Amino acid sequence: MDNRIITISREFGSGGRTIGKMTAEKLGIPYYDKELIKKVAVETGFDESYIEKQGEDAPSKSIFGYAFAARGMNGAMNGMSADDFLWVIQRNVILDLAEKGPCVIVGRCADYILKERADCLNVFVHADADIRAERIVRLYGESEKSPLKRLEEKDKKRSVYYRYYTGREWGMAANYDIALNSGKLGLERCVELIAELTDIQKALTS
Amino acid sequence: MDNRIITISREFGSGGRTIGKMTAEKLGIPYYDKELIKKVAVETGFDESYIEKQGEDAPSKSIFGYAFAARGMNGAMNGMSADDFLWVIQRNVILDLAEKGPCVIVGRCADYILKERADCLNVFVHADADIRAERIVRLYGESEKSPLKRLEEKDKKRSVYYRYYTGREWGMAANYDIALNSGKLGLERCVELIAELTDIQKALTS
Repeated sequence: MDNRIITISREFGSGGRTIGKMTAEKLGIPYYDKELIKKVAVETGFDESYIEKQGEDAPSKSIFGYAFAARGMNGAMNGMSADDFLWVIQRNVILDLAEKGPCVIVGRCADYILKERADCLNVFVHADADIRAERIVRLYGESEKSPLKRLEEKDKKRSVYYRYYTGREWGMAANYDIALNSGKLGLERCVELIAELTDIQKALTS
Repeated sequence: MDNRIITISREFGSGGRTIGKMTAEKLGIPYYDKELIKKVAVETGFDESYIEKQGEDAPSKSIFGYAFAARGMNGAMNGMSADDFLWVIQRNVILDLAEKGPCVIVGRCADYILKERADCLNVFVHADADIRAERIVRLYGESEKSPLKRLEEKDKKRSVYYRYYTGREWGMAANYDIALNSGKLGLERCVELIAELTDIQKALTS
């Protein structure tokens, strides 16, 4: 086993992003999430906030989406929809990052994009809805929608996006090398388990 | 965290049963699988080979199934189908076993049956089809059906059974506390990870 790249997919509010960040810190390797978004933004000329919103949610085919996304593209999309173009760019960025060296990549279907790499550990993080609801209110505050509704909508969007671009069912255990219930196990324990499965930690501790 | 009961659900050929047995041995606690089947058989008067076949597969409503299953029942089924009656008995046996003390229970929807217990660690074990195909041929020999067909049929049956009795989707990461790719991680590493998450091992090593 030679796990050098860690991809983390996660249910909204499960703490998967925090686990990714903590794992990267523990192992002393780069962590890509907002960084990745910025890199994509620069390469595409897309508006950063648009990418942050659209890069992982359900493809939007609205006129507004096209018009907004196409700004500054100078015809580089070659007839692809804005979403498909973004997918291609994101995919190339993720392939490049993985080529550069050990890292943690959160979200963006990285598990699927890097599925040919033997040195990639694919992780899924989930938790019961009540625990996630409490977490999103604590971290992101209240909104006019109930926390459970917010979870449902966000997970639905991620699920549709994932199915659209990968043909796979989001959240199926078989898509990941390890799937963890962060509510039951705790974030720290999840970080320990993931780090334990990489050769990176072995190198540090041996 | 106080994990004393370990349930293991698994894809056919993933080595989940072996992992369950090895984990029980490592922790010095009972392992229930064929033992469980025998106990159920004694309590119900069902034919043991029938239970082994029907206890985890899709409910069969065939006349043959009923006639065979009902032998020796003395009307104890109270109008339930043979499959439903078997489900109720299996459920009671599993609840009793968990009440008795730390143990490993493989299959039989034990994860769902024990879902109210906070001291239960629910594990799912899976592996890529090629690895599972190689394993079932090595362990159970060739048959007239291709290994991939055998995998598909067995997993389909487990999936239908699970959905029928639990209302859940089989193999969804969210149903388990930890899901492991035994092909990627190796059986020994899976055993280590599971054992690590129980208080049983902590008591032994501290």
